[in-house]
Order: sequence, then C-alpha cells, then structure tokens
Amino acid sequence: MASPGDLTVRSGRVKTARRLATRAFRARTGEFLAEGPQAVREALAAVSDSGQDVVIEVFATVEATERYPELEQSAEVWHVVTDDVVADIADSVTPQGLVARCRSVLTTIEDVPQDARLVVVCAEIRDPGNLGAVIRCADAAGAAGVVVAGESVDPLNPKVVRATAGSLFHLPIAVEDDVEAVIAELQSRGVQVLAADGAGETGLFDADLDLAAPTAWLMGNEAHGLPDAWSALADRVVHVPILGRAESLNLATAAAVCLYASAREQG
Amino acid sequence: MASPGDLTVRSGRVKTARRLATRAFRARTGEFLAEGPQAVREALAAVSDSGQDVVIEVFATVEATERYPELEQSAEVWHVVTDDVVADIADSVTPQGLVARCRSVLTTIEDVPQDARLVVVCAEIRDPGNLGAVIRCADAAGAAGVVVAGESVDPLNPKVVRATAGSLFHLPIAVEDDVEAVIAELQSRGVQVLAADGAGETGLFDADLDLAAPTAWLMGNEAHGLPDAWSALADRVVHVPILGRAESLNLATAAAVCLYASAREQG
Repeated sequence: MASPGDLTVRSGRVKTARRLATRAFRARTGEFLAEGPQAVREALAAVSDSGQDVVIEVFATVEATERYPELEQSAEVWHVVTDDVVADIADSVTPQGLVARCRSVLTTIEDVPQDARLVVVCAEIRDPGNLGAVIRCADAAGAAGVVVAGESVDPLNPKVVRATAGSLFHLPIAVEDDVEAVIAELQSRGVQVLAADGAGETGLFDADLDLAAPTAWLMGNEAHGLPDAWSALADRVVHVPILGRAESLNLATAAAVCLYASAREQG
Repeated sequence: MASPGDLTVRSGRVKTARRLATRAFRARTGEFLAEGPQAVREALAAVSDSGQDVVIEVFATVEATERYPELEQSAEVWHVVTDDVVADIADSVTPQGLVARCRSVLTTIEDVPQDARLVVVCAEIRDPGNLGAVIRCADAAGAAGVVVAGESVDPLNPKVVRATAGSLFHLPIAVEDDVEAVIAELQSRGVQVLAADGAGETGLFDADLDLAAPTAWLMGNEAHGLPDAWSALADRVVHVPILGRAESLNLATAAAVCLYASAREQG
C-alpha cells in the first residue's frame, strides 16, 4: 500500500506548485496545473513543443495512487502526499486526489497548420468557463487550432483547463496579442474570417454563405461582443438566427452552432 | 430624487424575499426572485398562467430607480431601498440594484402547445448554469416549450433564472416528475423523441434522420447522461458527431447543436 512521503503544505515544492494558481507565476515559469484524473491522463499523454514531456511531476493522494496505477506508471515523478497537500495546491474543490505540474502547452499562430480548414479565434474572452467550453467545442468539431487573442483569460487558468475537459491537450492553442494581425495572417493563408455577431448582416444558414471554404470563426467578448473595428476586418459578419424571443445565445452555445455548421458543410 | 424608504434587512418583507433563495420556500409560496434589469424587465412584461402580473413587488436602489424610470412605471409596487437591502435579498453578486419578487411562471406539459414542432426535455439536469443555458438556447432556436423532468434543478433557482437571460419568461417551462410519462405523452402527440447521447447509434447529420418532423430532444444529466431505460423509450438515440479528439460536448453546447439542426430543417 502506498503511503504519503515527506511533503507538507510547507514544502518548497508544494508552495511552488500552489503559486501556479496565479497568472503572473504561470507566465514567469511557463508552467501550469492540471487537476483531476482526466486532465492528468491527457497531460501525461501529451508532448510539449520542445519534445519534452508535458508533466513535470504529479502530486497524488494514497487513494488516487491506488486507484490509478497506470497513471503512476507513465509519470516520471509521482509524489504520494496527504489529502491536505493536494487540496492546498489545487484550485478545484474536487481534484479527486490528483494534481500535475505541467510545462506550458501554449503556442503561437505559426503552429496552427497552414492548411487548417477550421479555426476559432477567441478575441477578449474573459470568462474561464466560456473559453474552456469553446476550446472543447472546437476540438469536438474537428477544428485545427484555437487562437486566443487580445486581452483574453489565460488558457492555462485552472478553471479554463478544467472546462476544456482534456481538449487543451488535443489541438494547438495559440496565444497572440494582436487580434488584427491574427485576422490578417489567416486571410493571407486563404482562410475566410467569419465574425460571429448577433447584429451580423449574414445569417448562418443563408445560401450565399460558403461554409465549406476554409474558415476561421472570430468570437468576441461575452458581454460586449466584437468591436466594430475587428468585425470590419472580417470577410463576413454572421449571426446565428434567433427564431424565438431570446435576445442572443451565450458565447459557448453560439460557437458550437457556428462550428458545427462549418464542420457539417466541410464534411 | 428618489430616497430609500423604511425597509431594512430586518423588515419582514425583506426577510420573506430573501427566503426565496431556498427551494423549499419557493415551493411553499409559489414565488421566486428575478434579479437585475434584464430579468426584471422581462418579468414585468410577463403575465402568469392565471392572468395575474408576474411581478409582485420590486426592490430597487436609488441609483437603479433613477436609471430605469420605465421599469418603475410599469411596476405595481416599487420599493426604493438601500444598497444593503438589495444585496441582502439577491443571490447574485451584481444584481445591479434591482430584485423583483415574482409569482411562479412554471407550468405543466399540458401547456406545451399540442402542435409544438420543437420541444426540449431536460431529464435530471442538476447544474443551474446548464439548465439556464438550455432554456435560453431552446428559446433562441424557436422551441415551443421546455419540460424539466425528474430530479432536475429547480428552474426558479436564482442561478437558473439568471442563466436564462430572460428566456424563462418567453416560453412555457413545464415541470414534470415522471420522465417516462413525458416521453409517452409527447409520442402520443405524434412528436418523435430523440435522445441525445454520445453513444447513440444515429449521427445527428445522418441522412435517414428526419429532423424536419416534430421533435422533442431528450437531454440527460451532465455527469451521467441518460439512463438506458429512458433512451430505450426514445424513437432514436442520436449522437453529435465528434470530429476531433474531444470525448464529448458539454450539455449546453450539445443541446445547441441538436436544437439548431432541427430548427434549420424545420425552417
């Protein structure tokens, strides 16, 4: 039976891991946390840009160590710790006994394949749950990458990581400061940029909208939408038709409908 | 300029409103809270089943009273109160100075129109944000009603009300205990029941799926999905195709994709 080692909430290694809850410390170290069996499993299967393992070390309770022997086997460094230590490091209320310290999996737009046929650009998305849901949805719809642009929430925020349900590790997540440069870069590749906006002139199901063409969906901030300056740079501004009396869809559901409309036509 | 009346956090009227945060008190009184300008505006425009106004009384700060004179005009009873009182009653951290005590807008399946062509049945959805997002999405996609069945979260829970973004007041929200009876009732009306399940045999875009027919989408619990016993009663069990490496979609995004697929074909 596994038993906890010497690490406590006062150990330097544990304090370092805990500090990854802050964006500043993640940015400084290029590291982040994956919490819970699903995220840790996906992280262990992932390889970073530089060809290194993504997972640096795993902190696991006795119970989790006994429950997930296959994860312990595939980890280079596995610390058996008390429940307190896992709870101390984790952002989640229920990390199910497992937290991994990981090397960043973020990249830049160069790593979104040149021949990508479906891409999502998240421009100033602020809510971690929304960004995570959009990344998960992009993965499900077969997108080749997600670009997180402008003043968005950090994709390595623990709440984003959780909401992606593993998809963070499945496709390139590029972070770029300049939304306009991202739009120009995608257009220069022959990808049409469709801005999703409830006030858009074109309906998602309009006959003259070519959803089979290589497409990047530009999704704006959940509260304020897309600024006109960015919509103006898009090839089309597209609305999801509202057939009832709702004022709008929420960001993640709008992204889902747009992405699947493209995926279906690109089929 | 408006000034606060005599109500304090110790007033009986305020205490009564605050207790509507609990399901038990909502069930006992048949009342609930709508928070923030959008929800209060929609509530003021709504009429309950019995032909009464939905809004019984509004609690508003001085600032909100001055900002929304049109809401004060359309309310029968409008209490100008201190910021403390609104904060005390509201579940939301930012109710923007407005909370309304309302009569229930919930109904039963009899009030979902007999000729409904698109319905959503939520079976044991537990997360308030998810249920709210599904109701909002059902409204956007032009559904004729939502049935909240089995052991689901209360649709009048303040977090659900908020997540519906006003859609709670736009279409019949029926609450029913017995999921099997709901399925049978809809089928007896000639509505096909499509169970949404990642393991379903039929793909959403399969050619032999008739999405133009009158349809009820049966959505299961976010963690455990639909029990086999209920899927077996459905006419078809349908999965949203996963084109990338995601394990699944989250509940609200899956509902969005299914509902819009139907809406498009029914168009």
